[in-house]
Amino acid sequence: MKRDAYLLFEEEQLNRGIPLDQAVHQLKQLKVETPSWGYSDQGTRFKVFQQEPSAHNPYHRIDDAAEVHRLTGLCPTVALHIPWDRTTDYGHLARYAQNQGVGIGSINPNLFQEEEYRFGSVCNSRPQVRKKAVEHLLECLNIARIVGSKEISLWLADGTNYPGQASMRKRMNWMYESLSEIYAQMTSSERLLIEYKMFEPAFYHTDLADWGMALHQANRLGERAQVLVDMGHHAQGTNIEHIVSFLLNEGKLGGFHFNGRKYADDDLITGSTNPYELFLIFHQILDALYDEEHPAVQRTAAHISYMIDQSHNIEEKIPAMLRSVLNVQTLYAKALLINRKRLAEAQEQQDVLTAENEVRRAFELDVRPLLAMVREEAGLPTDPFMAYATGSYREHVMNRQ
Amino acid sequence: MKRDAYLLFEEEQLNRGIPLDQAVHQLKQLKVETPSWGYSDQGTRFKVFQQEPSAHNPYHRIDDAAEVHRLTGLCPTVALHIPWDRTTDYGHLARYAQNQGVGIGSINPNLFQEEEYRFGSVCNSRPQVRKKAVEHLLECLNIARIVGSKEISLWLADGTNYPGQASMRKRMNWMYESLSEIYAQMTSSERLLIEYKMFEPAFYHTDLADWGMALHQANRLGERAQVLVDMGHHAQGTNIEHIVSFLLNEGKLGGFHFNGRKYADDDLITGSTNPYELFLIFHQILDALYDEEHPAVQRTAAHISYMIDQSHNIEEKIPAMLRSVLNVQTLYAKALLINRKRLAEAQEQQDVLTAENEVRRAFELDVRPLLAMVREEAGLPTDPFMAYATGSYREHVMNRQ
Amino acid sequence: MKRDAYLLFEEEQLNRGIPLDQAVHQLKQLKVETPSWGYSDQGTRFKVFQQEPSAHNPYHRIDDAAEVHRLTGLCPTVALHIPWDRTTDYGHLARYAQNQGVGIGSINPNLFQEEEYRFGSVCNSRPQVRKKAVEHLLECLNIARIVGSKEISLWLADGTNYPGQASMRKRMNWMYESLSEIYAQMTSSERLLIEYKMFEPAFYHTDLADWGMALHQANRLGERAQVLVDMGHHAQGTNIEHIVSFLLNEGKLGGFHFNGRKYADDDLITGSTNPYELFLIFHQILDALYDEEHPAVQRTAAHISYMIDQSHNIEEKIPAMLRSVLNVQTLYAKALLINRKRLAEAQEQQDVLTAENEVRRAFELDVRPLLAMVREEAGLPTDPFMAYATGSYREHVMNRQ
Amino acid sequence: MKRDAYLLFEEEQLNRGIPLDQAVHQLKQLKVETPSWGYSDQGTRFKVFQQEPSAHNPYHRIDDAAEVHRLTGLCPTVALHIPWDRTTDYGHLARYAQNQGVGIGSINPNLFQEEEYRFGSVCNSRPQVRKKAVEHLLECLNIARIVGSKEISLWLADGTNYPGQASMRKRMNWMYESLSEIYAQMTSSERLLIEYKMFEPAFYHTDLADWGMALHQANRLGERAQVLVDMGHHAQGTNIEHIVSFLLNEGKLGGFHFNGRKYADDDLITGSTNPYELFLIFHQILDALYDEEHPAVQRTAAHISYMIDQSHNIEEKIPAMLRSVLNVQTLYAKALLINRKRLAEAQEQQDVLTAENEVRRAFELDVRPLLAMVREEAGLPTDPFMAYATGSYREHVMNRQ
Repeated sequence: MKRDAYLLFEEEQLNRGIPLDQAVHQLKQLKVETPSWGYSDQGTRFKVFQQEPSAHNPYHRIDDAAEVHRLTGLCPTVALHIPWDRTTDYGHLARYAQNQGVGIGSINPNLFQEEEYRFGSVCNSRPQVRKKAVEHLLECLNIARIVGSKEISLWLADGTNYPGQASMRKRMNWMYESLSEIYAQMTSSERLLIEYKMFEPAFYHTDLADWGMALHQANRLGERAQVLVDMGHHAQGTNIEHIVSFLLNEGKLGGFHFNGRKYADDDLITGSTNPYELFLIFHQILDALYDEEHPAVQRTAAHISYMIDQSHNIEEKIPAMLRSVLNVQTLYAKALLINRKRLAEAQEQQDVLTAENEVRRAFELDVRPLLAMVREEAGLPTDPFMAYATGSYREHVMNRQ
Repeated sequence: MKRDAYLLFEEEQLNRGIPLDQAVHQLKQLKVETPSWGYSDQGTRFKVFQQEPSAHNPYHRIDDAAEVHRLTGLCPTVALHIPWDRTTDYGHLARYAQNQGVGIGSINPNLFQEEEYRFGSVCNSRPQVRKKAVEHLLECLNIARIVGSKEISLWLADGTNYPGQASMRKRMNWMYESLSEIYAQMTSSERLLIEYKMFEPAFYHTDLADWGMALHQANRLGERAQVLVDMGHHAQGTNIEHIVSFLLNEGKLGGFHFNGRKYADDDLITGSTNPYELFLIFHQILDALYDEEHPAVQRTAAHISYMIDQSHNIEEKIPAMLRSVLNVQTLYAKALLINRKRLAEAQEQQDVLTAENEVRRAFELDVRPLLAMVREEAGLPTDPFMAYATGSYREHVMNRQ
Repeated sequence: MKRDAYLLFEEEQLNRGIPLDQAVHQLKQLKVETPSWGYSDQGTRFKVFQQEPSAHNPYHRIDDAAEVHRLTGLCPTVALHIPWDRTTDYGHLARYAQNQGVGIGSINPNLFQEEEYRFGSVCNSRPQVRKKAVEHLLECLNIARIVGSKEISLWLADGTNYPGQASMRKRMNWMYESLSEIYAQMTSSERLLIEYKMFEPAFYHTDLADWGMALHQANRLGERAQVLVDMGHHAQGTNIEHIVSFLLNEGKLGGFHFNGRKYADDDLITGSTNPYELFLIFHQILDALYDEEHPAVQRTAAHISYMIDQSHNIEEKIPAMLRSVLNVQTLYAKALLINRKRLAEAQEQQDVLTAENEVRRAFELDVRPLLAMVREEAGLPTDPFMAYATGSYREHVMNRQ
Repeated sequence: MKRDAYLLFEEEQLNRGIPLDQAVHQLKQLKVETPSWGYSDQGTRFKVFQQEPSAHNPYHRIDDAAEVHRLTGLCPTVALHIPWDRTTDYGHLARYAQNQGVGIGSINPNLFQEEEYRFGSVCNSRPQVRKKAVEHLLECLNIARIVGSKEISLWLADGTNYPGQASMRKRMNWMYESLSEIYAQMTSSERLLIEYKMFEPAFYHTDLADWGMALHQANRLGERAQVLVDMGHHAQGTNIEHIVSFLLNEGKLGGFHFNGRKYADDDLITGSTNPYELFLIFHQILDALYDEEHPAVQRTAAHISYMIDQSHNIEEKIPAMLRSVLNVQTLYAKALLINRKRLAEAQEQQDVLTAENEVRRAFELDVRPLLAMVREEAGLPTDPFMAYATGSYREHVMNRQ
């Protein structure tokens, strides 16, 4: 019956004017980096629950990431977080990863978990703390080079909790000075991804509070600095796809952190709370990717680093990661099925209802036949989630010390 | 000059039609319970910073709470949290507190920090977990009796993270069954305060998500069950004073958790982000307290348990607590200076601008002369914050092991 | 091919353990009331755009509503708004509607568009204004009886713009007194639906600000008073399906206003901004409808009045209404395909990921084959939206004076 | 007694290290432009109430604005809105204003109230609509020159209501093209203030949705283009003072629209809902104004155009405007009393609690003695609000046809 389902799907799409080759081609290109920290215990300030034996060291985490890639074919790299993944021999770690079938992706510095960072890291009024922070950034750049990574993915927790606590403008300037130091060391093939977040852990002001502030730093630093959008880091109601579209237009969208949220930075499974939002984000990205009138925009869209960043508080880690990755793939597939020609025509005619329908219509398609075909052709399990649940790797994890 | 300032203030208030005796009387009645957990290390999921030697055991915490009371005269009781304040001899702890000049206030059960509670406590689908939770509630009731407390202050972290994860209705019903068990054991002089919270640590649905759900439980249980309002537990934009007013009208406002927030449940110093909000809350409470046409409403207003519930992540704990307590006192004093007669007249005449002015006008008064007088009469330091900063107790704390 | 698509769909659902008969049966029961005011010019405070000739009188509006019903089979009743639909002979209007194939549904009083209501209607401090408001409510009840309607659907704009402007508690009590007067006149077959809204047009406090306040009034009034939930009337982040589930559990969910929103009460096409939300709401309703252990809950779920309440500012009115109605049907169909047995098992086992998957899985199905079959069996156009776009009624409307 | 109050206040401030001369000097410089449209009927989409005889033409509005200036000494200019203030002889209007004692301030184009703008103005996909919009902008520039104004204050309602409705990127680019046309015509002494708004009247995406988008346009256009911040145009929780501080640092804060809000763009009296927020905004502005290390930042701070933009739905218009203006003055005065030297020291020492206290402390001062002195010296009524209520101009307005 699966063959029937695919043929029917294919015919229907052809009737809509959508040959599937291009969608299949794009789906085969999709890559989503998973984070090492997604395989270890995470939680809320109230409690970090421990269910399955979590990955206790970077090697375990690479094992898990490699399993996710084996099952999905979507996750060829794994992001490291320093110092959580600190080790004595990063070259060894990189070779180990390669042997497991994955590469090392972005390197994520941590500038928030040491006592010195209580009042900030690169924005701290104390020069010695800023120096320490910059040194950590340089350490991460060095690690990146050892493991063959080209990206530093930077999130700053810097901010204040009370009015008057610090000078916002001085901190802005210190931030730029600090980031300049690492940026100056980066070669033309390396890039710095700058993430922003509305609040938490700072509750009065956050130095990089929104995309405008991140873009400003990226613009001042230069073309190898770009903005990273995390789906959980905005005010309620924010139109994230609009920001995505804006950054694409400026050549400044460098990375994406997928996760889900309903309230704050909830870090839930991607696509579990409002799947339409992620679909609409992909719609903007594909709109840029296919915009032949603007090659720079196309290039930007083609080089976005897609990454997962979520924590698993109450659910099993590996299947939760699989679910996120599969949701990303599903929603990307749907966005690929928008009839862009018809959409453009309806937009041209200012026919609101037809235009809206073209977009929503694609979202309502059931893309399983398409994904099954893509997986089959790649020799992957048709249902990776089920394959994990019934496979031996899960048993291995459950018995891992 | 202080005397001059007071006389000038008194004259001005008299001219406004506000003799100060009543305000002074009310200020002397004001009591704010501080929480034992406010004196130990708290933080965010990213980092718990450690500055001063924090209070490592319940005895230290009682010491600190007693110091806050000595300096302010406002905090005669301290709330306990079980198991954080678990000890082998609660009677001894209570006597120790008494010797330090404070009593034990509300007992706060913890139903979120054990592995069994991953999917809820009193709402858990497993009967044995609900049983364990109820037993903990009964343990807390027992402790309350030993230490001479009359209040169980209950916050539930129960909720789910994903659509479909659990049956919301079953959980509602289990919650009621569980709470009934403890309620049935409570005597007519004891009360159960039920707190609600919009989200965190649950990110899809929280079983007690808003005041309506808490009120529903309190109504079903009976008159000794009341609602506790925490300032940080609402959606953005929520008019908290309206809820306060509503609960007072229904005789169901039992307790209040003061803290500050700008974004989510930030747990900042009370009055540090939007002081007008707390003033407006006190305005509603005083409106109820002076409502002679509705004695039941008056009684409710007279029996609200005021408590602080905040965490100190980056600032010193004792002075942060002092600041909160003093802000509460300041804003309460201002609310006492609203000319309620004139306000009622303006309301009667639907004179919006005059009515608004009566309220804001009182907020704009500088009440330091009044508070200085109240403190002087009670033999307290005029500036408790400064008294702590320069006093010997701070040194004691800094050297405490 | 359509036949093939249906057979394939049917087979797939059978394999999932979902025979389609029940879904088909439920889909045939689905009724969605459309509002007369949805067919006339609406807009924002900045501009009311005029595109197509809108329906200028109640007869036109009934014509349009009847057309929507003819095309969809889903909308057998139309709601009236008084005084917008005021006429001299309501009996004539009702007969006219019947001749067009629709009945008159809920009667919606308007207590916000006369100068007297500047400071409120049933909550106004002036007795004569409250009296006028109550008389209007009684007028609406009378109209309901003439036109054969059993429902008064009440939304109050009452509130204040400034702290101090009015006594919140007095207004609560006046509201209850006023509503009691109309409730006392209602027979056992009539019901009063009470709607709430967070803000707008009042911007400091709204007298019926949330479901808790509406439920309180409904509880005090009696069993024929129930709560009406409008999807656009909540704070950002509010879990509406939780409220729906709660009200169902209490037997107090009486009506539903469908519309879409991203920011405030945007009144967009239902299902156009976050379709998953409406699906999850239907999931809760169906969960109640199939809950054989709680017949009262089932009864409540079976008697919810589904209504559309949206305005069309920039798009054509009739197709926008069709789109809303069809989106409701689509999302309802998907919710019908959740495998509730498997879901209950996963919930029982606290298997978060499987439970989440059961729910999301149904959402991802493409239900067009199912809906095509339902429409075909009822002799309706397969694509009602297209049928309108190409049909003669649209021409008629465009030339209507 | 007033003299006593002032002397006591002065002594107290001296003791805090704050000589009053500088505050007095700054207060005398404060200028707040009022908008002509604030004197005519405004409302919500539900109802525009009519209370007092509102100002029916631009001459009436200038009369009212002049009265506000006579009473407060704070409002020497009045903003015009075209076409609401359209007239045949702008030179005559300007001379009339001058005779009443006020000048014409910013000119505000209206690009949202004509049928052509249903799908946008400068972002409309139809070139002829964009052309019309640009022509209106040029008309406004021309009017500005006739009346002696140097500022065009531009708010765009452009946006979409539905996903897919339009190409976000094309619209961004069209906007820039359109704005370039007017910018190219502006001389070095004229400036373009670009306002942003999160939502309303567009409910899916707004082309100028946040400060980052407005700054981007201003940066591309050139140095005479700056950003205008309206207090009611942000997402809930947004730290507006942070944005203010950021724009000052970049030399791009050009204007400010004062108003109040609790929920959305409520357009209430400034300072009526959260006065601390406006105080904290002034704190950032003064921090920039006194920053001698950054002369460009100082210059920017010195040239912010302060304007009121609020609507009066239920209250009398002129006293509501007075209240707003007086609240601005009060909160500005308080911000002037922060001891910046001590604050800087506490910040330097990372003493959070002392720094927070320095700021909040100034907010808690009662500045009436200071304001009374400033008014007295300027020959203004001590209580302008009361002066209006009891003066003859109010009578004149009430009898105006």
